[in-house]
Amino acid sequence: MKNVIGIDIGGTNIRAAAVNSNGEILHQIKVKSNARDGIEHLLKNLGEVITSFADFQTECIGIGIPGIIDQKNGILTQAPNITGVKNFPLIKEIKKVTSLESIIVENDANSAALGEYWMGSGAQSNSMLMLTLGTGLGGGIVLNGELWRGEDGMAGEIGHIIIDPAGPLCNCGNNGCFESFVSAEAVRRIVNNNAVLKEFTKNTHPDDIPEKIMLLAIEGNEDSLQIWKDIGKTLGIGITSLVNLLNVDSVIIGGGLSNAWELFQNWMLIEIKKRALSGPGERLRIYPASLGDNAGIFGCAYLAYKELKIFN
Amino acid sequence: MKNVIGIDIGGTNIRAAAVNSNGEILHQIKVKSNARDGIEHLLKNLGEVITSFADFQTECIGIGIPGIIDQKNGILTQAPNITGVKNFPLIKEIKKVTSLESIIVENDANSAALGEYWMGSGAQSNSMLMLTLGTGLGGGIVLNGELWRGEDGMAGEIGHIIIDPAGPLCNCGNNGCFESFVSAEAVRRIVNNNAVLKEFTKNTHPDDIPEKIMLLAIEGNEDSLQIWKDIGKTLGIGITSLVNLLNVDSVIIGGGLSNAWELFQNWMLIEIKKRALSGPGERLRIYPASLGDNAGIFGCAYLAYKELKIFN
Repeated sequence: MKNVIGIDIGGTNIRAAAVNSNGEILHQIKVKSNARDGIEHLLKNLGEVITSFADFQTECIGIGIPGIIDQKNGILTQAPNITGVKNFPLIKEIKKVTSLESIIVENDANSAALGEYWMGSGAQSNSMLMLTLGTGLGGGIVLNGELWRGEDGMAGEIGHIIIDPAGPLCNCGNNGCFESFVSAEAVRRIVNNNAVLKEFTKNTHPDDIPEKIMLLAIEGNEDSLQIWKDIGKTLGIGITSLVNLLNVDSVIIGGGLSNAWELFQNWMLIEIKKRALSGPGERLRIYPASLGDNAGIFGCAYLAYKELKIFN
Repeated sequence: MKNVIGIDIGGTNIRAAAVNSNGEILHQIKVKSNARDGIEHLLKNLGEVITSFADFQTECIGIGIPGIIDQKNGILTQAPNITGVKNFPLIKEIKKVTSLESIIVENDANSAALGEYWMGSGAQSNSMLMLTLGTGLGGGIVLNGELWRGEDGMAGEIGHIIIDPAGPLCNCGNNGCFESFVSAEAVRRIVNNNAVLKEFTKNTHPDDIPEKIMLLAIEGNEDSLQIWKDIGKTLGIGITSLVNLLNVDSVIIGGGLSNAWELFQNWMLIEIKKRALSGPGERLRIYPASLGDNAGIFGCAYLAYKELKIFN
C-alpha cells in the first residue's frame, strides 16, 4: 500500500500527516512555519518536516499553501502571509529539500475544500462549495469531483461576490463583498460600532471577539443574537446566488465562525428557502465542515493520490 | 466528411442547419414551432424538419430546447414555453420521428453559450460565461470547454444571482435578481415608472420598447441614457461577482439588449475595473456575441460532434 504526505502550510504552522488511501492518518506533526520570517525559513522547516516522514514509503507529497499558484509552471505567484514571495519558483525550490520527484502544490482554501470533499462533510457530494469563515471568507469550488481553479488559479474567491453594491468597504477595495458581512473582521467591525458590545468586549483580545459574541448570544444578549441573525441572513443571500448559478449539491461551511452554526443556521436556511430557485434550492444540502484544521492535510493527500493516478 | 444537424427549438420558431465540422452551414431552414399548441405539434414539425435534411448524410442531431433537461434519462423536466410538458420523455419521443439513433438534447441557453464558444465571440476562450439579455437574463457556463450543467441541468441561471437583496421583485419570487435590473422586462418596468419615457413610448409595442429607448438615447434623451448607464453599472456589478468567483477568461453578452452595447459598455467596464479582484479582472475579456440567432444552431452542432467523438 502506497502512502502519501499531506502538508498544510499556514502563516503560523505547518501541519503534516502521512495518510493512506483509506484516509487514515498514520502519523501527524505540527511545527512552526516561520512564514513571516521569509520563504527561506519556511522552506528549511518544510524540508525538516518532509525528512521526518522518511519511514513512510511516500511516493508523492501534496502541499497546500496560502497563496496564488500557477499550477502549470509550479510558481507561487502571490502569498501575502509569506514574506518575500513574488513569482517564487515553489516546486523547483521544494525539490532542493527533498529527493521525492512527485510534488503537487495547491492553494490552501482549495485543498481544504478537497479535504472535506474526500473525507469530511462533502463526502457524499458530486459538486460542492466550501466556505471558510475565518478572518476573511475563503472558498473552494469542486465540480464533478474536480477543483475548478480558474484561469489564474484564483477561482473560488467566494468572499468577493457582491452582496450589496452599497455595502461596507472590503479589504479588496470593493464595496459590499460577502466577506465584508460574514467574517471575523466583519464581526469586529460591527462590535466596534455598537456601544454596548464594545463595552462588553473591552478586555477581549480582538482574535477572540467572535467567540465572545457567540457566548454572549448563547446567554441571550440581544445585540449579539442580532449579529448572528444578520450573518445567517447574509449567508442565505450569498448562498442563493451561488446555487442559482452553479446548481451544486452541497455547501460546506467551515472556519472559526462556523462554531456559531446553531446561532445562524435557521436564519440562513429561511433566507435560502425564500430566495433560491426551486430546483437548485431543494437539491442543496448545507453542512458544517467536519475536519477542522485537518481539512487541508486531507485535501493535499487527496491531490497526491490523484497525482499518482491511484484516485481518478 | 460527416455532417450533423443543429436544431434550435424556440417558443416561436424551429431553426435548423446542417453544419460541417469546420462550422460551415450547408443548408438552413426556419419553420414555426407551434410549441404553444402543445408538444405533439412541436414534435410533428420537428420530424418534418429532420426529414428535410435527409440528403445531408447526418450521423447525429443536436437539439436545443427552452427547458430543463435531465440528460441522463433524456427527459424534458420543465418547459414553460411548450404547452403540456412535465417530465416529458423527449429523446424517446424524438426517436419516433426519426430513424437516427444518435440524438443529443440540451437547454437552449447552454447550447447558445456553446455556439459562441465554438464559432462566435468565445472562440479564443477556455472558460466563458454567456449572458443573454432577452425578456429575462439567461446564461451558460463553459469551463475548460465543457458545459457546467449542474446537478439538475439548472446551472447557469445567471439572471438569478442577487445584485441587491432589497431590489425589485423578480418573476422567480426573489428580490433583486440580476434580471430584475438587466432585461427587456426591467427596461419596460423602468419606462413604465418614468412619466417622460412613458409618454414617449405610448404608441410603442411593449416588445419594441427597449429598442425605442435605445434610439431615444442615441438622440440624446437624458432619461434613456440613464437607463443604459444603470444597466451598464449593474452588468459591471454582476460580472464582478461572476469573475471573482469563477476566474473565467471571457464573458460574452448576447440577446436583444446587447444591441445597446455602445450605450452601456463603458459604464460596465468602469464598474468592473473599480470592483473586480486584480487577477481575475485583468484577465477578463468581454465581447458582444457574434452569432445572433444562429448561436443555438452552432452549439447544438458542436454537441453533436462531441457525441460522435469527432470533437473531444
